[in-house]
Amino acid sequence: MPKQTAKDEIILGIDPGTSIMGYGLVHVHGKDLILLQYGVIHLRKYEGHELKLKKIFERVTSLIEDYKPDAVALEAPFYGKNIQSMLKLGRAQGVAMSAALAREIPITEYAPKKVKQSVTGNGNASKEQVAAMLQTLLKFDEIPKLLDATDALAVAVCHHFQKGSQQSGHRSWKSFVTDNPGRVK
Amino acid sequence: MPKQTAKDEIILGIDPGTSIMGYGLVHVHGKDLILLQYGVIHLRKYEGHELKLKKIFERVTSLIEDYKPDAVALEAPFYGKNIQSMLKLGRAQGVAMSAALAREIPITEYAPKKVKQSVTGNGNASKEQVAAMLQTLLKFDEIPKLLDATDALAVAVCHHFQKGSQQSGHRSWKSFVTDNPGRVK
Repeated sequence: MPKQTAKDEIILGIDPGTSIMGYGLVHVHGKDLILLQYGVIHLRKYEGHELKLKKIFERVTSLIEDYKPDAVALEAPFYGKNIQSMLKLGRAQGVAMSAALAREIPITEYAPKKVKQSVTGNGNASKEQVAAMLQTLLKFDEIPKLLDATDALAVAVCHHFQKGSQQSGHRSWKSFVTDNPGRVK
Repeated sequence: MPKQTAKDEIILGIDPGTSIMGYGLVHVHGKDLILLQYGVIHLRKYEGHELKLKKIFERVTSLIEDYKPDAVALEAPFYGKNIQSMLKLGRAQGVAMSAALAREIPITEYAPKKVKQSVTGNGNASKEQVAAMLQTLLKFDEIPKLLDATDALAVAVCHHFQKGSQQSGHRSWKSFVTDNPGRVK
């Protein structure tokens, strides 16, 4: 395999919801994936739909200002059961995307199944399985209690693998493991 | 009726859609309603959903920068037939709202029926009836060909009437006409 030039990249993963929004930031440093930050924004405490949207916009904007990501990856389900909730979800997604659009940061969307497939090799993996795999991969000590945060990290990692698949041949966590046997303990 | 202090206000009305977005700006000067601008943003020509969203964000942002509205009024249907299209509509709304949220401009939403009721006195009025009423009220020479523009103007006017209803007793176009017999020709 030809040697590649290490390219630093910061990816912000977002899992937008209307009651909890997860976010996760990873730093791609050459072949290393470094965890920068992850967390959730609790939206239930804000009364009124507009105030929730405002909080999403503000928090995503401040994450972008603080970490200056090169790419935003969005976990975006395209189907749901309820028309009303899909409209609200669409708004939450639109607001989160705007914070990136305003700064000309490219956004890529991934369906939840794609994220799970990419990170664990199984499109039907549980949130816990995704979190466990991320723990190994990003070497954090404790799995966060709110799995929306790991879901957001997962979409950032998924974006890296997908991007990597075009650049270096990693198509999934599985192929990453195969290509990097020393990296996984 | 007690004399009121004239308060200038600029209202930006938006009718966000995923193929055409209408906008309309009115200037409330004392008891006068002055038409500032109206138009549509054609989104069909932009390929890809994300590019459409980017254009919405950019255009609404530039309208806000150019006219510095004090309020944004949004025509917002809450129901639709198709889950997919509601998600996309939600995103378009979210992006348009973000441009206002970013500048701390208050947003008020009105259901389409409410807008028609407020402007024409009939919640089931046709788009043409709404446009004709706005033509009288805002004194424009020609009804624009694209009724999405007049729909957006209508929501701005609706916001003025609704606001006025709290401040000066105008509850609708009807009551405005009754209160201002000299204003309508």
